[in-house]
Amino acid sequence: MSRVTCDLTISLDGFVAGPNQRAEEPLGDGGERLHRWMFEEPEANAAAIEGILEASAYIMGRNMYAGPGEWDEEWRGWWGEEPPYHAPVFVLTHQRREPLEMQGGTTFNFVTDGIESALAQAREAAGSKDVAVAGGAETARQFLSAGLIDELRLHIAPMVLGSGERLLDGVGDLKLEQTEVSGSSLVTHVRYRVVR
Amino acid sequence: MSRVTCDLTISLDGFVAGPNQRAEEPLGDGGERLHRWMFEEPEANAAAIEGILEASAYIMGRNMYAGPGEWDEEWRGWWGEEPPYHAPVFVLTHQRREPLEMQGGTTFNFVTDGIESALAQAREAAGSKDVAVAGGAETARQFLSAGLIDELRLHIAPMVLGSGERLLDGVGDLKLEQTEVSGSSLVTHVRYRVVR
Repeated sequence: MSRVTCDLTISLDGFVAGPNQRAEEPLGDGGERLHRWMFEEPEANAAAIEGILEASAYIMGRNMYAGPGEWDEEWRGWWGEEPPYHAPVFVLTHQRREPLEMQGGTTFNFVTDGIESALAQAREAAGSKDVAVAGGAETARQFLSAGLIDELRLHIAPMVLGSGERLLDGVGDLKLEQTEVSGSSLVTHVRYRVVR
Repeated sequence: MSRVTCDLTISLDGFVAGPNQRAEEPLGDGGERLHRWMFEEPEANAAAIEGILEASAYIMGRNMYAGPGEWDEEWRGWWGEEPPYHAPVFVLTHQRREPLEMQGGTTFNFVTDGIESALAQAREAAGSKDVAVAGGAETARQFLSAGLIDELRLHIAPMVLGSGERLLDGVGDLKLEQTEVSGSSLVTHVRYRVVR
C-alpha cells in the first residue's frame, strides 16, 4: 500500500508560522524566512525538494489551496495556472465545488466530508505510490493526531520565531523512529517513521 | 579568547524536560528518554559526547549541581565523588560556600553574584580553552538572552513530550548560523553559531 508522507518546515522552536498571520504575510512575521533553504539553496537541498514533489496525490487544507484573504468560487487558488504538484490534489473544504483542472497535470478536487474521505480518494488516485499531506499545519496536525501519517519529514530552519503557530501542539503521544538526518547551512532535514 | 558553548538535549517539540518535574523524576514525565542517545548509542554519538566534555571550565545552575529535592550545606552535589567534568565548575547559587574539591579534577566553585561574574571566573580558569554552560535550561536561557553564548549545540531527540519546560521560550531574537548536522537513530545533532 502507498505511504502517507508529510513535509513541513519548522523553526528551531517549533513554529510553522510566525505571529500575525495575515493576507500580506501569510506565514506571519518572520515566517517566510523559514523557507529560505528552498529558494536560496535549491541545489544543496535537491533531494529534500524532490521528496516533497514525488507524491502521486496530495491533500491540503483550504487555506493552502486558496491563499490568504477573501476569495469566491471563481478563484482558481493561489498556485498559478500551472501548480507545482503535477498530480491530483484533494482540498479539504466545506464548499462543494466541481474539480478544477489546471495545466501540467494538477487537478484540484474539493472534499467536503473530512480527512478520512480525502485520504481514501487520494490513495485511490495514487495507486501504489505515495500520498502527501501538503499542509498547512492544522491539516498536518489533524492527520498526525488521527494516526494517518506514515512518514514525517521535518525541515528545521536555524531560526527562533518566538511565537506563532506551533506544529506539534496537541498531536498527542506520537511515537517516532528517526531514519535519516541531513542538512545544509539553512536547514536540517530529519525523517521520522511514525510508529503505530 | 575562549568560546562559550552550550549543549542541550531537547524533544522535537522543544522541551528539555517533561511535565511534573520532581525529586523522583527530575526531568519530568518522559524526560529521561531524551538522553537515551548518550547511554544507548555512546559509540555512534562519541563525537557529540566528547564535545560536551571538552570544555576547560563549566557553569551550571544550582539545581544541576545539587540535584532535586532537599539539601543542606553538607551536600556534595549529586554527581558522586568523581564528577564527569574533570575541570572547575562554577555553580550559580545564592548560598555562599567554600569551593568543594572532588576527585578527578572537578572543583565546584559557588558564585553568588550572577552570570557575568560566573563567566568571568570560568574564562579565567579556562584560559584560551572553551567554557561550557552545562545547564539547566533556565541557566542556558539566561546566558542566551544575555548574548553570552558563542556556540549552541542542540541534540534533538525523536520524541514529542507535549508539555514541560521549553528551552527557547523568551530568549528573544536569537540569530543563528547553522554550521554542522549529524545524527544517529536516537538523536539529531545540530551546531549553531550565535551571531551578534
